[in-house]
Amino acid sequence: MKKFLNSVHTVLDESFDGFVAAHADIIVAGEERKFARRRSLKPGKVALVSGGGSGHEPLHAGFVGHGMLDAACPGQIFTSPTPDQMFAAAESVDQGEGVVLIVKNYEGDVMNFEMAAEMTDGRCATVITDDDVAVETSTYSTGRRGVAGTLIVEKIVGAAAEKGMKRLELQALGQTVNRRTRSMGVALTSCTAPAAGKPNFELGETEIEMGVGIHGEPGRRRVPIATAHAIAEEMVKAILDDLAPRRGDEAILFVNGFGGTPLIELYLLYNEAARVINAAGLKPVRSLVGSYVTSLDMAGASITLSLLDDSTTKLWDAPVHTPALRWGM
Amino acid sequence: MKKFLNSVHTVLDESFDGFVAAHADIIVAGEERKFARRRSLKPGKVALVSGGGSGHEPLHAGFVGHGMLDAACPGQIFTSPTPDQMFAAAESVDQGEGVVLIVKNYEGDVMNFEMAAEMTDGRCATVITDDDVAVETSTYSTGRRGVAGTLIVEKIVGAAAEKGMKRLELQALGQTVNRRTRSMGVALTSCTAPAAGKPNFELGETEIEMGVGIHGEPGRRRVPIATAHAIAEEMVKAILDDLAPRRGDEAILFVNGFGGTPLIELYLLYNEAARVINAAGLKPVRSLVGSYVTSLDMAGASITLSLLDDSTTKLWDAPVHTPALRWGM
Repeated sequence: MKKFLNSVHTVLDESFDGFVAAHADIIVAGEERKFARRRSLKPGKVALVSGGGSGHEPLHAGFVGHGMLDAACPGQIFTSPTPDQMFAAAESVDQGEGVVLIVKNYEGDVMNFEMAAEMTDGRCATVITDDDVAVETSTYSTGRRGVAGTLIVEKIVGAAAEKGMKRLELQALGQTVNRRTRSMGVALTSCTAPAAGKPNFELGETEIEMGVGIHGEPGRRRVPIATAHAIAEEMVKAILDDLAPRRGDEAILFVNGFGGTPLIELYLLYNEAARVINAAGLKPVRSLVGSYVTSLDMAGASITLSLLDDSTTKLWDAPVHTPALRWGM
Repeated sequence: MKKFLNSVHTVLDESFDGFVAAHADIIVAGEERKFARRRSLKPGKVALVSGGGSGHEPLHAGFVGHGMLDAACPGQIFTSPTPDQMFAAAESVDQGEGVVLIVKNYEGDVMNFEMAAEMTDGRCATVITDDDVAVETSTYSTGRRGVAGTLIVEKIVGAAAEKGMKRLELQALGQTVNRRTRSMGVALTSCTAPAAGKPNFELGETEIEMGVGIHGEPGRRRVPIATAHAIAEEMVKAILDDLAPRRGDEAILFVNGFGGTPLIELYLLYNEAARVINAAGLKPVRSLVGSYVTSLDMAGASITLSLLDDSTTKLWDAPVHTPALRWGM
């Protein structure tokens, strides 16, 4: 294992400190690094809080800022943050209008966020994301996994919160966006957690894991490496089968790298995915290409398709100012 | 070699097509994919053109758009674009006020851009970047190599061009920014070009290449992997020795990933670099952390420090709207 680190015990704290230092104009650290929160909170706005295991950077702390999250709680690598962290984050950013929690559908995360919500005496409403079409249940989840589509939920709900939408409407909006958002991933390599020091799972020299989860959980099947065309076609077709869009529907096409895959390959994959989507009569009117929801140093990528309407297109386009996603300001 | 591709012969064309499709709001492709250019050119503005070998994405095409480049020419992997490409790009974007070429200091690039400049009958002024302090000459360069600091030159000169600065002033500004910008890189792994199908060079299980170039050219020395603290300290000290800043100077601190290194490690490296810089009495008042000037799938990173004054700070902060760098609009 060759990584930039000092000690496997301090990786997360030191990376968090670097993140906060690099983005001090936007971010402040919560006490004991329990969460990262927006430097300037907006009075009267419903607060948005997310979180999850570390190792998926920039998710979630990279999406804290104007137009997206108010706070994010990082757990240990691939491990849910604690209810205590989430409660502290919610307390810190609640402006009296309550809190919406955005939670990826993993058992640990859902349980801990539920406990945190109970601690706030009904001030929290929760949106659970489960956009991964690859498998119905998995190592850490009952039901589908929440993966890269979570970014889209956070962006759209974040923009609506910024515009003054209230808590239960935001929850309903988040649930709608999640239902209209579907993803699938593929791993070309495993990933190595610093503390483990060895690959999380083994993949042969010419094997790929089709439908992999963002912690390296098994997907649908292991197959020999195929062309980008064949890989993109299988992933997009799985998404379209599930999403059942109408011809002419507009969508965000999001090609997400897992941390070890360079942009040159992600754009090639985008090219293939867009071709399949266009052939199905859909219009990819918005795009996002980059490594936003990662699995440490895994080589691989996911494809996410999110159906838009006039209202959600405006919310996607609304100004955002976070460390990892920024436009319009 | 496991990569997202269809054929090693079509990687660049297909990735370029995906790039243009994903950013059709900003970018149009030049004829025969000779260059990518801004969709909306600004009458009366001096045009900025850059380019270089592919494999460094998002550099340079990812920086085409408002407030930065007007066009960029991608060469083959790690190979200069041709004078014909550069001439076509310059012709396409020249608004009658002439063109500034921004060229990384490699023999092939410099020679080809010179030939292109001659073809335009004096309409081009050139800025050559050579920010890499690691070595004095290298495999592909006489004199220092141009590396990640090129992004900073392109951003600051791009903002000044947008504000109406003329050609020779832009050239002088670019040269000044280049002189005040210094970088150094380190490789944890090699990189694999698709056509070669095997690593560009070999590094042992526990070895790193200190001072590596962005094509995997040799740096200062091969050493056993050390702590992020020791690595950052060596790199920043080499930069500071060369730059000889005054205490209290303000700077951009840019930690750049080479393509295979995830953000969690880059932020940890940022944390270490910022510590050394603060201890030297400098103020890192602006930051950039991410994979912007890459070497295919290489794991590794570079650190760039660029001294600012009031004027260049304003130009750095000015609105930019490109596929890879965007703020203020």
